[in-house]
Amino acid sequence: METEKDLKNFVESISPPLNDYSKIIQNRLDNLTKPLGSLGLLEDFVKKLGTIQKTAFPKINKKRVYVFACDHGIAQENVSAYPSSVTAQMVLNFLRGGAAINVLARQFDVEVKVVDVGVNYDFINIQNLIERKIAKGTKDFLLEPAMTRKQALESIFIGIELVKQAKEEKVECLIPGDMGIGNTTPSSAITSLICKKPVEEVTGKGTGLSDEELKHKIIILKKALEKREIVISDPLSILSQVGGFEIGAIAGFALGCAYYKIPLIADGFISTTGIALGTCFSSKVKDVIFPSHSSLEKGHSHLLQFLNLRPILNLDMGLGEGTGGVLAVVLLESAINLYNNMATFESAGVDKRE
Amino acid sequence: METEKDLKNFVESISPPLNDYSKIIQNRLDNLTKPLGSLGLLEDFVKKLGTIQKTAFPKINKKRVYVFACDHGIAQENVSAYPSSVTAQMVLNFLRGGAAINVLARQFDVEVKVVDVGVNYDFINIQNLIERKIAKGTKDFLLEPAMTRKQALESIFIGIELVKQAKEEKVECLIPGDMGIGNTTPSSAITSLICKKPVEEVTGKGTGLSDEELKHKIIILKKALEKREIVISDPLSILSQVGGFEIGAIAGFALGCAYYKIPLIADGFISTTGIALGTCFSSKVKDVIFPSHSSLEKGHSHLLQFLNLRPILNLDMGLGEGTGGVLAVVLLESAINLYNNMATFESAGVDKRE
Repeated sequence: METEKDLKNFVESISPPLNDYSKIIQNRLDNLTKPLGSLGLLEDFVKKLGTIQKTAFPKINKKRVYVFACDHGIAQENVSAYPSSVTAQMVLNFLRGGAAINVLARQFDVEVKVVDVGVNYDFINIQNLIERKIAKGTKDFLLEPAMTRKQALESIFIGIELVKQAKEEKVECLIPGDMGIGNTTPSSAITSLICKKPVEEVTGKGTGLSDEELKHKIIILKKALEKREIVISDPLSILSQVGGFEIGAIAGFALGCAYYKIPLIADGFISTTGIALGTCFSSKVKDVIFPSHSSLEKGHSHLLQFLNLRPILNLDMGLGEGTGGVLAVVLLESAINLYNNMATFESAGVDKRE
Repeated sequence: METEKDLKNFVESISPPLNDYSKIIQNRLDNLTKPLGSLGLLEDFVKKLGTIQKTAFPKINKKRVYVFACDHGIAQENVSAYPSSVTAQMVLNFLRGGAAINVLARQFDVEVKVVDVGVNYDFINIQNLIERKIAKGTKDFLLEPAMTRKQALESIFIGIELVKQAKEEKVECLIPGDMGIGNTTPSSAITSLICKKPVEEVTGKGTGLSDEELKHKIIILKKALEKREIVISDPLSILSQVGGFEIGAIAGFALGCAYYKIPLIADGFISTTGIALGTCFSSKVKDVIFPSHSSLEKGHSHLLQFLNLRPILNLDMGLGEGTGGVLAVVLLESAINLYNNMATFESAGVDKRE
């Protein structure tokens, strides 16, 4: 069992990028048959990918999304439009290939891994499910801390360990997705704390609350945040007081990506909450993150600002699972494709600027 | 040779969508295992595609981009960072498969057709080039009308005819792209006229002008617009006075898509200018347009507002050719994939909302 000391050591051992490959990559980009800089953010992506992968020719051959699933004690406060039973049912749906993330992952050749970090259901003899159940859901953080400090630590190390394994399996791009009825509520709590924004500004309708129900959710969140004893400077305190197991696992996942130098695409509100929490442990997480979409969920834009990420997709989506992240993978691939396969001014016999 | 009367007849014969398939499609969408409406604009896309294709199960199997290339007399006023020779050189680059549009089209299985509507170069025995040269470039519209009314009409019918052919070849999604040194200048002129915005607000740096050069471009545009005798209510007058052959062809292309009921994806500034001009002939063009990206070029956002389109990709790209449009195709395909292949609540045994 890992200790807080182990986490501290791990975080401190994350190295900064060895070399900045931006210059050498930009040089090649500027020789391709297009106006200077006209591929916009796609040019930035190639440079960032190259710097992470320590090469002037980055590539993304093997891509994988991990859907972290768990239940939330706070769901008993009527903060979601769906019953908690849906969490386990959706896990089975993921494993049968029927969910949105499965359809998109097939389209874009992305592997889907499903991780039970705390679903309130006994999965028995279920193939392909990665079993890392910490408990059968968190506690209701209106009444008590969502989890123990030990559980928070455990969730983080689950994320780190999965990245280690992915690295060994030569995965070159990772997306953390989420499933868990009630999980926008802890995400709003954490967003409010780390972005220093009032609850109202970071709390949305989740899977489809009415205006009335949203008001109730905000009241619950405010009360809960008043009751909990949170040390804002200590991300483990934030996580254990109000967090979810999947948020902790995603924070660890982000730390793992920073350590093992794997490009990480942020998905929606819960995914980005976990990654943002990861940056509270180590700002070096920022060196490996790529943006995807702007979620319908209200708090997401604050998190993106906190992470200094600009969304590249505006689709008004709001279902998590990693769906927005998977849609963005193909744009990273386009960036690499263009960089590798366009003709240069010289090879094409095209005149340069006057 | 087609007459203005022929164009009027064609435009008047464009039918509105026969039935609105939104309801039946939304009904199916609401039974898929996801929160209601959580696929955002992807849900809207399926509904619009279904209504265009007159089916509850739309599909996009065959996709094609047409790159309309030509030269611009106004280029002699030093409004571009690149010499006019680049237009013909890039046409050859497209045909050899070395340009950005070729790389993206290969990635996304989109056919590329290159159309010479007025390049100032004699292409001799060049395979695969669609030869529709109206003249060797337009006239300098600072000094005289860019083209005759007859040439404007010719450009429009070129676009219509190509869509007719694409329809016969069972193409299910079209993207109009562009190539032509100097072509942001006529596009800014047209945008200023149809969006009723001052030149400064719709004129950008094109392929990379300096601040000084941009000021010069704005001065040239203002002078030119003062000199030209334009009947704003007559889109053929706008096109002939300040337009480009590719802009006319794209306007016709948009009319063709409205007539033959083919989904049309707007690319960047020039592509969207042509489409917007098409809507000045018939507002029914709006029934078939889909957005793609928001271009770096300043006038683009005004055109998107004029067309009531929200860009779904924010990549700060600015190279035309159809590149942004091709990146958006894959998102339309994702929308259809999700709609066709996700499990329903019933089939997956997932509980619905409480």
